[in-house]
Amino acid sequence: MRKGQLFIISGPSGAGKGTICRELVKESNVMFSVSYTTREPRPGEKEGVEYFFVTKGRFQELIEEEKLLEYALNFENFYGTPKAPVLLAIEEGKDVILDIDIKGALSIKKNYPDGIFIFILPPSMSELRKRITGRGTELPEAIALRMKGVLKEVSYIDKYDYCVVNDQLHEAVSRVKAIMMAEHSRVSADIYKLIETYKEEI
Amino acid sequence: MRKGQLFIISGPSGAGKGTICRELVKESNVMFSVSYTTREPRPGEKEGVEYFFVTKGRFQELIEEEKLLEYALNFENFYGTPKAPVLLAIEEGKDVILDIDIKGALSIKKNYPDGIFIFILPPSMSELRKRITGRGTELPEAIALRMKGVLKEVSYIDKYDYCVVNDQLHEAVSRVKAIMMAEHSRVSADIYKLIETYKEEI
Repeated sequence: MRKGQLFIISGPSGAGKGTICRELVKESNVMFSVSYTTREPRPGEKEGVEYFFVTKGRFQELIEEEKLLEYALNFENFYGTPKAPVLLAIEEGKDVILDIDIKGALSIKKNYPDGIFIFILPPSMSELRKRITGRGTELPEAIALRMKGVLKEVSYIDKYDYCVVNDQLHEAVSRVKAIMMAEHSRVSADIYKLIETYKEEI
Repeated sequence: MRKGQLFIISGPSGAGKGTICRELVKESNVMFSVSYTTREPRPGEKEGVEYFFVTKGRFQELIEEEKLLEYALNFENFYGTPKAPVLLAIEEGKDVILDIDIKGALSIKKNYPDGIFIFILPPSMSELRKRITGRGTELPEAIALRMKGVLKEVSYIDKYDYCVVNDQLHEAVSRVKAIMMAEHSRVSADIYKLIETYKEEI
């Protein structure tokens, strides 16, 4: 059976990777990998939808039990990707998308180099500032710190396979879907199997 | 200005690469590179649409004047890709598609390794035989020869970036379009320019 693929949707906070992932889940037959985090839920966030919200103690156990594909510390909070459900889905032929920050993505790249790494960019820094401010959950000092951090984060873009500028959401989602379709058209083991059937036919 | 890209649509005769190219030209803003050939026009083929039909003498001149990106001899006829219009279109930011056999594609790969190589596969050998027979322009002996040649041609698929099985035309065209869109989302020089503008903004 054809294996699924792991698509890592990554980029600076505020670039819109979460929104893109939600659209992909709505429009395509992909599994969204829900991460663990030790941060507090934001208003409207639901357990098991955006994240599994856990204590730092529980997170430590997940690390020790090797149940995470990767984890990272970001602004004093831990974020981690569950290992078993992701690998199982891929084995079963399902595509998996991860919404993950740059540190997490680079960590995944070490453990799972077959993943397809997509960097979501904001159209401009001023637009990014507007989006972060609009969210209303961050203090001005935190925003200033983030903006500085973004330039550093963006410098890792050369570790990624693709980048998508999230100017118009619909266009950005179409681009990610095209990348997923294209990656399934790579010359792969499945194609060699098809070619074997040609030989039997002739 | 963003450069265009060269997409090489290749595969065995009868796989449907010509039909796919015609659909792409209709549906996308791409330039179809019309090749030179020394073969006779088939019924309905028009000068400058499917091919530029030239004599062997004229073809020889084009080779000597280095006006071809590649050329190949196939079943006693020459086929060649004009160099200047392709390179100019790419410089001007336009995507170019080439409909080309395997020999030609491998030759392009040597001269233009930045091209994106897409192999069009028939769903099965029996379907391919049906399509070639249906065209009604080939003798049975020629068809038998082709079928044997196809297996040899398909063995070069590992030189290609992508492959698309042309079972349903609409689906195959969508896949090629997705590949084109994805390739324009590669981390590239244009992205590094965008990132430079971020630095100026902060």
